[in-house]
Amino acid sequence: MSPPRLLIDIHTHVYLPRYAAFLRSRASVPRILTRTSPEGRQEERLLILDDEPSSGRPIGAQYWDRDEKLKFMDRHAIDVSVVSSANPWLDFLPASTAHQLAGELNDDLETYCSTGPSLSHITGVKRLYGFGLLPLVPEASTEAIISTVEQIAKLPHLKGVIMGTRGLGKGLDDNALEPVWAAIEQAGLVVFLHPHYGVDKNAWGEKENGHVLPLALGFPFETTIATTRLILSGVFDRHPSLRLLLAHSGGALPQLSSRLASCIEHDPLVASRLAHDARYYLGKLYFDAVAYGSEELGFVSDAIGRADKYSRSGTSAGASGVKDASADGAEQRRSGTRRMLFGTDHPFFPPLGATEKWKSVVENLEAIDGVWGWSDAEKDAVRGGNAFALFNLGS
Amino acid sequence: MSPPRLLIDIHTHVYLPRYAAFLRSRASVPRILTRTSPEGRQEERLLILDDEPSSGRPIGAQYWDRDEKLKFMDRHAIDVSVVSSANPWLDFLPASTAHQLAGELNDDLETYCSTGPSLSHITGVKRLYGFGLLPLVPEASTEAIISTVEQIAKLPHLKGVIMGTRGLGKGLDDNALEPVWAAIEQAGLVVFLHPHYGVDKNAWGEKENGHVLPLALGFPFETTIATTRLILSGVFDRHPSLRLLLAHSGGALPQLSSRLASCIEHDPLVASRLAHDARYYLGKLYFDAVAYGSEELGFVSDAIGRADKYSRSGTSAGASGVKDASADGAEQRRSGTRRMLFGTDHPFFPPLGATEKWKSVVENLEAIDGVWGWSDAEKDAVRGGNAFALFNLGS
Repeated sequence: MSPPRLLIDIHTHVYLPRYAAFLRSRASVPRILTRTSPEGRQEERLLILDDEPSSGRPIGAQYWDRDEKLKFMDRHAIDVSVVSSANPWLDFLPASTAHQLAGELNDDLETYCSTGPSLSHITGVKRLYGFGLLPLVPEASTEAIISTVEQIAKLPHLKGVIMGTRGLGKGLDDNALEPVWAAIEQAGLVVFLHPHYGVDKNAWGEKENGHVLPLALGFPFETTIATTRLILSGVFDRHPSLRLLLAHSGGALPQLSSRLASCIEHDPLVASRLAHDARYYLGKLYFDAVAYGSEELGFVSDAIGRADKYSRSGTSAGASGVKDASADGAEQRRSGTRRMLFGTDHPFFPPLGATEKWKSVVENLEAIDGVWGWSDAEKDAVRGGNAFALFNLGS
Repeated sequence: MSPPRLLIDIHTHVYLPRYAAFLRSRASVPRILTRTSPEGRQEERLLILDDEPSSGRPIGAQYWDRDEKLKFMDRHAIDVSVVSSANPWLDFLPASTAHQLAGELNDDLETYCSTGPSLSHITGVKRLYGFGLLPLVPEASTEAIISTVEQIAKLPHLKGVIMGTRGLGKGLDDNALEPVWAAIEQAGLVVFLHPHYGVDKNAWGEKENGHVLPLALGFPFETTIATTRLILSGVFDRHPSLRLLLAHSGGALPQLSSRLASCIEHDPLVASRLAHDARYYLGKLYFDAVAYGSEELGFVSDAIGRADKYSRSGTSAGASGVKDASADGAEQRRSGTRRMLFGTDHPFFPPLGATEKWKSVVENLEAIDGVWGWSDAEKDAVRGGNAFALFNLGS
């Protein structure tokens, strides 16, 4: 049976009220502060980046109020949202605080979802699901992290975890995380990998370019580096059922993946550690469709669709038997859509003026609609069918 | 008249004998040192990166001997090479030394090309052309740089300049470089933008991954950042005839270009400075085809081919009148090939064992041959026709 035609947003954030209150209580970044605006109003501002201008950015009910999330969904005809805490999560906390707060926020998010509305036209499907939080901070114990994995696995509306790239302080290729990957794989949770730190700010130079460079380049670079380090560490060879969803369509990973394969090939010590060509692993990953352009999305589906050609196990390489390069390219592009999922990045990238729909959302929907070589079936899958299956929403 | 069918390598490096001798005279990186190999032989090793293992990498005649370059070309049926000095060029030198050495090396490269062989089947075309060097280092005077631009413009076999990303120490978006861009544009030289520094090494973590991360990710990130900063600084608005060729197919710029456009759109101060949507500028750039995969190359042609849609001048946006998205995608992909040029990155990425052809070269040729939607005409253009026209080799 084909899944119902739904619009499902898998990249949409929240600062749960408990988390927002916690940010208000803090005197250093990340924090929410109250200031008097240039117009004389009292207003709250969010500071999450160390290098952010001291005035931060506007923040309001759309960050924590569930009714605002549902209004946003209704306005854009989004049926279901799989909501995740926004960065920087618990990264800045000592281990014991992170553990306790993770547990509380996971319970909060379960309540946020379970007490929310259901779809009117499909029985048993809610409008809100969630990604939980793990206490992934330096000096966190494996036991604390795994007990939180187990907590999340028992909460019926939490379908995965959102995760930054620092792990326990040494990145996600840290051997100490092996039991964590095993526990996540075992629990069948989806890991949503999301950037926060970017790369060294010295790269951006002295010109005033607002947030453009760290957001447009730094964020995707961070995701690309973290995923590449995971590939190089063999995590996907050891945990073939691990389901990792990459923010912002995997950043630059697809475009650099053949170069990555070539660099590995020229470094026998690294190459000998891996079971497959680097490009194979892109077919094990999931990618949100938050790239703002049709050509980018089409290319991501190419990179996923070609992945099986780069298996070294011999079972799938060349198995399609397709000889015509043109047909092969079209088929490959369509098949790669199976691991791509619509997202909005709400409530970030709000419109600058009063508009009915958010430009950033419209752009992502138009991007899906405009991909050369995707049929309606593939577009429906990316808009919602893939998420419905990945998160097992119909069960 | 259509250009002759040639294979032209526009990304191929040399350490000219004068430069190699200079590196041998140095006691710190970059340098060439002699050591006793584990097998007891005397051998030279190259160290160019600050963080490189102290043993560096093997170096030999293929880096400086013109006969070796020609043998490599013959082996791979490369008709013409547009040769450039390899990184780190003159970046590490004081201004006066850099100025003098640039002048000498430009004369050396002119001799390297002009005294080399000609094509046997096309009158008046040599087998070797070159990109010269500018003394782009901190405290270099504009006069010194511009006098070197003028020197290069007078050397008939030098067709452009190769350039790193540091400029005078503040990057390429430095206002102080305005007269340099103007002089290069005026002289009709092509700027080949090439990485050397990557990004902060802390991003690579603690695992032993050889050179894989800085080469596969750091290099293309650097090119992406430098080009984005050039776009944001308005250089392409002020110098619409400037011809910039990006190494490694522009790194991650194509895949991040719609995200970049969206981030700019959400930052009115930045958006108001630029004449066009960020994606428009990709249609003003040239991209080598050194990406090692067909899907990557196809996508780069998509990103170039769509650029005119993002003009804000109103003359070209939507002018094609093509309504069918499928036909539009195919046409766009083919039209984008006009700014893509074959390259090898020789003598880097040598084969690990004794082989007739270099894997890295074969991969780049196979990548061109395998792009879905490129006809033979486009493949010929990328293999050589575009370079023939861009560098005006037939005149």
